[in-house]
Amino acid sequence: MIHKVEITNWFKKLQDDICHQLEVLDGESTFIEDKWLRPEGGGGRSRAIKDGAIIEKGGVNFSAVEGSMPAHVLKVLHVDVDKEQSLQFYATGVSIVLHPRSPMTPIIHMNVRYFELSNGIWWFGGGIDLTPHYVNDALASDFHSHLKKVCDSCDPTYYNKFKNWADDYFFISHRNETRGIGGIFFDRLNATSGLAKNELWTFVQNVGESFVPLYSHQVQQTQELPYGENEKKWQLLRRGRYVEFNLVLDRGTKFGLQTNGRTESILMSMPPHADWEYAHQVDEDSREKDTLFKLRKGIDWIK
Amino acid sequence: MIHKVEITNWFKKLQDDICHQLEVLDGESTFIEDKWLRPEGGGGRSRAIKDGAIIEKGGVNFSAVEGSMPAHVLKVLHVDVDKEQSLQFYATGVSIVLHPRSPMTPIIHMNVRYFELSNGIWWFGGGIDLTPHYVNDALASDFHSHLKKVCDSCDPTYYNKFKNWADDYFFISHRNETRGIGGIFFDRLNATSGLAKNELWTFVQNVGESFVPLYSHQVQQTQELPYGENEKKWQLLRRGRYVEFNLVLDRGTKFGLQTNGRTESILMSMPPHADWEYAHQVDEDSREKDTLFKLRKGIDWIK
Repeated sequence: MIHKVEITNWFKKLQDDICHQLEVLDGESTFIEDKWLRPEGGGGRSRAIKDGAIIEKGGVNFSAVEGSMPAHVLKVLHVDVDKEQSLQFYATGVSIVLHPRSPMTPIIHMNVRYFELSNGIWWFGGGIDLTPHYVNDALASDFHSHLKKVCDSCDPTYYNKFKNWADDYFFISHRNETRGIGGIFFDRLNATSGLAKNELWTFVQNVGESFVPLYSHQVQQTQELPYGENEKKWQLLRRGRYVEFNLVLDRGTKFGLQTNGRTESILMSMPPHADWEYAHQVDEDSREKDTLFKLRKGIDWIK
Repeated sequence: MIHKVEITNWFKKLQDDICHQLEVLDGESTFIEDKWLRPEGGGGRSRAIKDGAIIEKGGVNFSAVEGSMPAHVLKVLHVDVDKEQSLQFYATGVSIVLHPRSPMTPIIHMNVRYFELSNGIWWFGGGIDLTPHYVNDALASDFHSHLKKVCDSCDPTYYNKFKNWADDYFFISHRNETRGIGGIFFDRLNATSGLAKNELWTFVQNVGESFVPLYSHQVQQTQELPYGENEKKWQLLRRGRYVEFNLVLDRGTKFGLQTNGRTESILMSMPPHADWEYAHQVDEDSREKDTLFKLRKGIDWIK
């Protein structure tokens, strides 16, 4: 059975590969790296990029942390333990958020992670979702079709299940709109799924490896599209919504900030600039209005 | 004893007065008003201003809402009721956040509010705090001295108590820094304080009426100060921290967004533009570094 050390090393290599390929894709900027140690155990490699030709601001973070997890935190994770019992935990993963320069290119997020406890409990989690400033039906279809293939290669039920999960998770309730066109989201994937650990690990690897082809395609199809002040202004407002989701609702962000995680690594997901306007209204028959109409759950993007 | 109707009407008039005086102070922009009704009972008047000579974006909101409060919400408020019992609540107040154009002028926030339940429980709450992009010791002293006078006129223990409460409340734990130079914060002020309801109401009125003189002074002393690109850049980063506090930590914001409050009114506190930069560093011996050094609890600003 796959061991946490192999998983950790593979995630490290995934980070290396993705950073290298993103630097090639961008063509101008490169990543800077901060290695950090967590006093309670473990650490990470945060990599940040900015002011690129394609990527205005982004991060590709790896971490592998461990330590003691007290009963009240285990309870939040719905892990049954005797009162006052604590367990040792190990958590490793790769997290990515990229904010492109062009408002015609979508924001992308990916996370793949592995978690285990000293009582033998383990699970995988992860997801990829796309946040176009302007929704393009054909590119949304390409994105979801690719994800469906990744899912289908493992289990024919996964795409529907994880697509709906993403719709529910990446939902800005106080705005009654989804963060973008969704993607896939999964958590606590373990042997109760009916698949063996090695099979699930292969799935998670496939998700991780799909990131660069998925995003490269979105970039290639959008980077030459013209835009002006109007589109830049809209991009900044949409980034404001991205900030709202991440700071108000994202479980990973909230958990990280509350548990004394490394703030700069957690908040690498923030955009370089964001705007807010009181009660902003979009014009009738505009592309902005069309996008807002498409920020809802349950759309079948694959046509 | 003062009745909720009188309190409500006074808050409405406070909103009118403050908006009028801020329009005079600004000299260029005026407020727009949105009246709104809450399906469950009550409503409000949200007033927003933007693109002024002094105020780049701001809001002065009044609301008076009522309805049924279920046991689990009462529990959050530490109100003891029998299981499953619900009570009628009434809540009214004025909330203000102003983001000035000049990075040399501070952001300001004020809130005054009244809450009562059908079982006879009532309390006042509120606060004023200042968030300079650049901390100026003399102006911080002026701000706190004025607040101390407002507090002292009611109770000689209030300033210290409410100043420390503000230090603790307006603290961005994940950044280990205060939001600004603090001010005063108080909650659940009722007859257990030893003062009668009418006396507490006079205090709350005095806090409300101190807003315009307090901010006018800060504006007058800073509006002619020169600034350039460097200061504007810093202002945007500090506004990013303001966003972090409001979305991650502010109880009113979180409660409002979670309980289906009016999102646009709640998020009037957001700045027009905000920036984030991975692991931003300030120069040694810079005014930015001096400001960061002063964003901590327990400073006695009155000298």
